[in-house]
Amino acid sequence: MIQENGTEMILSLLLTGNELMAGEITDTNSVFMARELTQAGLAVNRKIVVGDSLSSLKEALTLLSRTSDIVIVNGGLGSTVDDLTAEVAASVSGTELVENVQAIEHIEKRLDRKFLMEASPFFNQIRKQALIPHSADLLENPVGLALGFRMKINRAICYFTPGVPRELKEMFQQSILPDICRLYNPKTGRKTAHLNIMGIGESQVQQLINQNIAEEALQGIELGFRAELCCVELKLSINDSKDESALRNVVSGVKGFLAEYIFGETESLSEAVINLLRQQNKRMALAESCTGGLIASQITAVPGASDVLEAGIVSYSNQSKSRLLGVSEGALETSGAVSEEVVIAMVEGILEKTGADIALAVTGIAGPTGGSDEKPVGTVYIGWGSSGDIRTRLMQVKRERLIFQQLVSASALDMLRRYLLGLGSDGIYYFDELSRKRL
Amino acid sequence: MIQENGTEMILSLLLTGNELMAGEITDTNSVFMARELTQAGLAVNRKIVVGDSLSSLKEALTLLSRTSDIVIVNGGLGSTVDDLTAEVAASVSGTELVENVQAIEHIEKRLDRKFLMEASPFFNQIRKQALIPHSADLLENPVGLALGFRMKINRAICYFTPGVPRELKEMFQQSILPDICRLYNPKTGRKTAHLNIMGIGESQVQQLINQNIAEEALQGIELGFRAELCCVELKLSINDSKDESALRNVVSGVKGFLAEYIFGETESLSEAVINLLRQQNKRMALAESCTGGLIASQITAVPGASDVLEAGIVSYSNQSKSRLLGVSEGALETSGAVSEEVVIAMVEGILEKTGADIALAVTGIAGPTGGSDEKPVGTVYIGWGSSGDIRTRLMQVKRERLIFQQLVSASALDMLRRYLLGLGSDGIYYFDELSRKRL
Repeated sequence: MIQENGTEMILSLLLTGNELMAGEITDTNSVFMARELTQAGLAVNRKIVVGDSLSSLKEALTLLSRTSDIVIVNGGLGSTVDDLTAEVAASVSGTELVENVQAIEHIEKRLDRKFLMEASPFFNQIRKQALIPHSADLLENPVGLALGFRMKINRAICYFTPGVPRELKEMFQQSILPDICRLYNPKTGRKTAHLNIMGIGESQVQQLINQNIAEEALQGIELGFRAELCCVELKLSINDSKDESALRNVVSGVKGFLAEYIFGETESLSEAVINLLRQQNKRMALAESCTGGLIASQITAVPGASDVLEAGIVSYSNQSKSRLLGVSEGALETSGAVSEEVVIAMVEGILEKTGADIALAVTGIAGPTGGSDEKPVGTVYIGWGSSGDIRTRLMQVKRERLIFQQLVSASALDMLRRYLLGLGSDGIYYFDELSRKRL
Repeated sequence: MIQENGTEMILSLLLTGNELMAGEITDTNSVFMARELTQAGLAVNRKIVVGDSLSSLKEALTLLSRTSDIVIVNGGLGSTVDDLTAEVAASVSGTELVENVQAIEHIEKRLDRKFLMEASPFFNQIRKQALIPHSADLLENPVGLALGFRMKINRAICYFTPGVPRELKEMFQQSILPDICRLYNPKTGRKTAHLNIMGIGESQVQQLINQNIAEEALQGIELGFRAELCCVELKLSINDSKDESALRNVVSGVKGFLAEYIFGETESLSEAVINLLRQQNKRMALAESCTGGLIASQITAVPGASDVLEAGIVSYSNQSKSRLLGVSEGALETSGAVSEEVVIAMVEGILEKTGADIALAVTGIAGPTGGSDEKPVGTVYIGWGSSGDIRTRLMQVKRERLIFQQLVSASALDMLRRYLLGLGSDGIYYFDELSRKRL
């Protein structure tokens, strides 16, 4: 972000935790902060991650506090021996750690009297969280014990925040972001459009843009591509100073030639399917074998899923395919559980058992075991449709179990989406070996 | 890691991508690399993340290549305009970008002839990925188009890798990790033990350790705590030079006084439940309402889940609770779908419909809508047990929808775990307001 004096405001994140360095957890805190800052028109310039080591933390905080205007430090404010951040903040700023009276009050208030009595043997341990550098201002934590704090170190205003995601989130939204916005008064620097795409690769998208949109129309428009699992996210953005209609024109051009592949702007595939069902006033049911409830779980993660989801059955054993879905034992024996005959029977069964208007069924071999020469691991049948109009598709997705489940769930939802839109079931999925052979 | 000459070997990661800086995705690549490096006895000293900007990338690569022995750069090797890494590597190292013959061959080989004809309009775009700094050695990519490369820049050996997780993974495991191990011959530097804990907070764990284990026994043992959702992961580690029995003794002490709260060492809660069911030769069924298939999905994510999972039913609508599980319409009308009566009927229904030995059922209000004064958002009944021995528990979990679903799924699995072990259903879950009131 450019400040009023014309220089760029530098904002850095410093994350600490051995678990981050050893790959034991995925860092969601910096993702959250980056998203919030970006939405507010601020940019994150750098992010440094170090372990719970006094020397690494000191080195990184010294570097960032000298080269940034704002540093947000996350993690290491807890009550256990690996929590070193307050000590490092005091050391780098040349102040003392003192037991903060307000912090003690905060801790006592959060632990109600009854709990405090139970917890009293632990109180000394918890008390560590009240040690704060002398010159710091406290930041409230409405949902946890550790208080955050703010202090000037070298060039930067530094915010120190707890590592527990829920605590960070509250503190960030209630105190830190408003504070930074007061100081820097950002204008949303860029206008951005997103398009979520499935069934075509990112190279093709780029080339189609080059072929279909004149170079001068693309002037000043930044294109960003992100391929994740089966989807490509295309981000188009333009500087605030430019005419927004230039962006709108390009977006509408791209929507024209990629039409059937675009499932949403900000929506997920689940949300796109739910919205289509809601518009068409249809209720859906699911019969899952190899995806094991993942499709149901992705649909029910969306608020309001109850408007369109009647029920799901995870018919994991052969017996449950018969007992719960009415698939005939003959079909299971002659064609096998992973077959077109069975996936059709699953669709018919779930439609009948639930009374839903439309159904989606999946049966396949997720692996690592269970494959045969005829039906190797990765073989999967997807079935969908409504009574009297059932479609199927065979895929070969040779990926490890969790990725297989994710890719198959997304493909199945995309087939349902295309069905609801009256498109053919001939989308090209790059992870499906049979798709590629058809090219 | 300490090198033979006595100095520390510094290993840094440099990740690039606007999507990482704007919080649009969660970075799983560095998590993967950190985990693999740690297991191989190497440590990651620093991680820097920057956007797709020539100047930020140059600055970070210059800094890290001057201060590290090894730098692994991830991202920005694709075929689109936001892919800048090869250009930056050439610029920082003072070499030229050239079209690499082997890289062109690799691309042509990966795109079979038929596909190439279809793709020919895109070939020029894809060809960008063959531009490699002149002095670099190629790194094979067995699963994608972009080749990686390795080159010395300043003090460091730098590896450049693609951002697509699957491509990085193959390249890292097949080329980069073996290469680094050949160069530095690491010994696994630390012995580490993990304990996964549920039903007690991290402060209590630390204090119980202080009270129950003598200070001298803890000498040289590093404790790491990580609270995630409802679980606490305790990591205990000791330097390679120390006696491993000291670590074993502390671990066995901790296992003694935390016994019922420890569900595993490396296992997840799902794996712990599956293992118990397998040992007891029991098959399970699930009836989920507000968790919408998440429990089934977490169970079926584990290879071999079919040994113990008979089936699951996501009875999302009231009608499906009656039609699929046989819950009486009277119970739904008088007690409501979120009630002890209904959760018991769900357990009975799923046991009867599936013939499983043991069942777990959940009904609640995930929100954001659907609550009432009497039953606010967050109210949830969990039921579990076997025929004639059904237990229930009421919880109040006031968290946003996705977190609610995660916490309720984990609690339900923990109750099943405790049931299978013959423990009471009185675990204390801190996110459950009724648990806290009972203290």
